[in-house]
Amino acid sequence: ENPYPFQCSIEDPTKQTKFKGMKSYIAYKLVPSHTGQQVHRRYKHFDWLYGRLAEKFPVISVPHLPEKQATGRFEEDFISKRRKGLAWWMDHMCSHPVLAQCDAFQHFLTCPSTDEKAWKQGKRKAEKDEMVGANFFLTISVPTGPGASLDLQEAESQVDGFKAFTKKMDESALQLNHTANEFARKQVTGFKKEYQKVGHSFKCLSQAFELDQQAFSSGLNQAIAFTAEAYDTIGDLFADQPRQDLDPVMDLLALYQGHLANFPDIIHVQKG
Amino acid sequence: ENPYPFQCSIEDPTKQTKFKGMKSYIAYKLVPSHTGQQVHRRYKHFDWLYGRLAEKFPVISVPHLPEKQATGRFEEDFISKRRKGLAWWMDHMCSHPVLAQCDAFQHFLTCPSTDEKAWKQGKRKAEKDEMVGANFFLTISVPTGPGASLDLQEAESQVDGFKAFTKKMDESALQLNHTANEFARKQVTGFKKEYQKVGHSFKCLSQAFELDQQAFSSGLNQAIAFTAEAYDTIGDLFADQPRQDLDPVMDLLALYQGHLANFPDIIHVQKG
Repeated sequence: ENPYPFQCSIEDPTKQTKFKGMKSYIAYKLVPSHTGQQVHRRYKHFDWLYGRLAEKFPVISVPHLPEKQATGRFEEDFISKRRKGLAWWMDHMCSHPVLAQCDAFQHFLTCPSTDEKAWKQGKRKAEKDEMVGANFFLTISVPTGPGASLDLQEAESQVDGFKAFTKKMDESALQLNHTANEFARKQVTGFKKEYQKVGHSFKCLSQAFELDQQAFSSGLNQAIAFTAEAYDTIGDLFADQPRQDLDPVMDLLALYQGHLANFPDIIHVQKG
Repeated sequence: ENPYPFQCSIEDPTKQTKFKGMKSYIAYKLVPSHTGQQVHRRYKHFDWLYGRLAEKFPVISVPHLPEKQATGRFEEDFISKRRKGLAWWMDHMCSHPVLAQCDAFQHFLTCPSTDEKAWKQGKRKAEKDEMVGANFFLTISVPTGPGASLDLQEAESQVDGFKAFTKKMDESALQLNHTANEFARKQVTGFKKEYQKVGHSFKCLSQAFELDQQAFSSGLNQAIAFTAEAYDTIGDLFADQPRQDLDPVMDLLALYQGHLANFPDIIHVQKG
C-alpha cells in the first residue's frame, strides 16, 4: 500500500512547561494520515527540520516557516496565526514528491514524542547525512535511452524564462501585499471613521427632531436614528472585513513570497 | 367642490429663445391638478412670486427657491437639479393651507402663458397688494368665545421652545450637510482610488502568472484577473453611489435649511 500522498493535521496548540515550570513552550498536535499516530512537536522542531531540508535540497524550494517572533509568543492571536502558517507549510511538504519522502521529514512525523532516545538518534542520523548540498546531485540518476538527453540550449532558455517569471512574480506579490496591507489599514481606520462621522451627524439630527415633540414625527425620528445606527454598523463591518478577506490572502502571499525568495539560489545552482 | 389640496407637476424643462434668438431661457411646464391646464413658467417668474410671498407673509416660512447660478445655466445636470428643486418647492407650496390659496400664487399657476396682458394685470395687482408685512396682521381675525384667549406666558414659552428647536435643528442640518458632502467627496475620489489600487495589484499578479504558461493554472489566472476587475467595479460603484443616496438627502436638507433660516425673523415678528 502506497502511503503517498498523505496529509498531516496540526491542531491544539497547548502551552506546556518543563524544568518544573521554569520554561514554557507551545506544543502542537500532529496527526499524519499515513500512520494515524499523533505526535507533539514544538516550533523549534519545525525549525530544526527546515534547516536540515534547506541544506539537503539545494534545487528544491523548501517553504519558509511562519516568522519567528520574540515577544508575545503566548498571545492567542499569534498562536492561532502560527498554527495556520504551520498547517500551510505542512500541506506543501506532504504534497511534494521529494520532500514528503525524505528520512528527516518522516522521522519528524512519526517518532513518538515520548521516546526521547529514538528522537535523538533520528536527529543525529539526519545531521550526519552526507548527501547534502552539492552531494545531493550524487543521489540523482540520469535517465538513459533515446530522448533522455537534454538539449543544453533548450534547458538554458527554460531556466531563463523561469527566472523572468519568478522576478515578475516576486515584484507583483510584493506590490499586492503592500497594497492589500494599506487597504486593510484604511478599512480599519479611515473607512470606519468616515461612516461613523456620517452616523454621528444623523444621530444629532434625530436628537434635534426629538426636541420638537410631535406625535406624527416620531416614526421619522426613529427612521433617522436607525439610519445613524446603520452607518455606524457599516463602519464596523468595514473594520472587520480585512480579517475575512485580505488577511488570509496576505498570509498565503507571504508563503508564496517565501518560495519566490528561494528561487534565485536554486536557479543559480541549476545554471552551475 | 373644494379644489384643495391640489398638486402641481413641473416637467419638461425646455430651452426657448426670444428676440429672434438673441436671448435664451429655460421654460418649465407646470400642470396644476385643480385646473388641469398647463402653463409655462421661467425661473424668473418663480423668483418674482417668491418675492411677493416673502413680503406678504412675515410669519410664514416661504421656502427658498433652489439657488441661482450665473454660469452653466444650460447644462443638463444643472437643469435637472433645478427642476427637482422647483418641484419640491412646489410640493411645499401646494400643501400649505395659507400659501396655496393666496391670489399671487393662484395667478402664477393659472394665468395662460400666452395671455401676456392678463399676466401683467395679475402681476400689477399682486405688487399693489397693501396687506403685506405688518399689515398682514390686519387680515387675521382673532377667535372669540370661551377658551379662545391665549395665555401670554404659555405662548411665550412655546415660542421659546420652538426657537431652541430650530437652533439645534439648524446646527444639526448644517453638520449633516457638511459631513455628507465630505463623505460623498471621499467616496468619489478616495474610496474609488483605494479599490482601484487593489484591483491594479491583482491585475499585475495575474499578468505575472501568465508568464508561466501552464495549462492547469489558466483557471486560477482568470480568477485573479476577475478579482482585479471586481475591485475596479466596486470602486466605480462607490463613486456612483452618492448620486443615489447622499445627493438627494443633501438637496432635501438644503430645502429644510432654507426654512430654518426663515424662522429667526418669523419668531422675532411673533414675539413683537
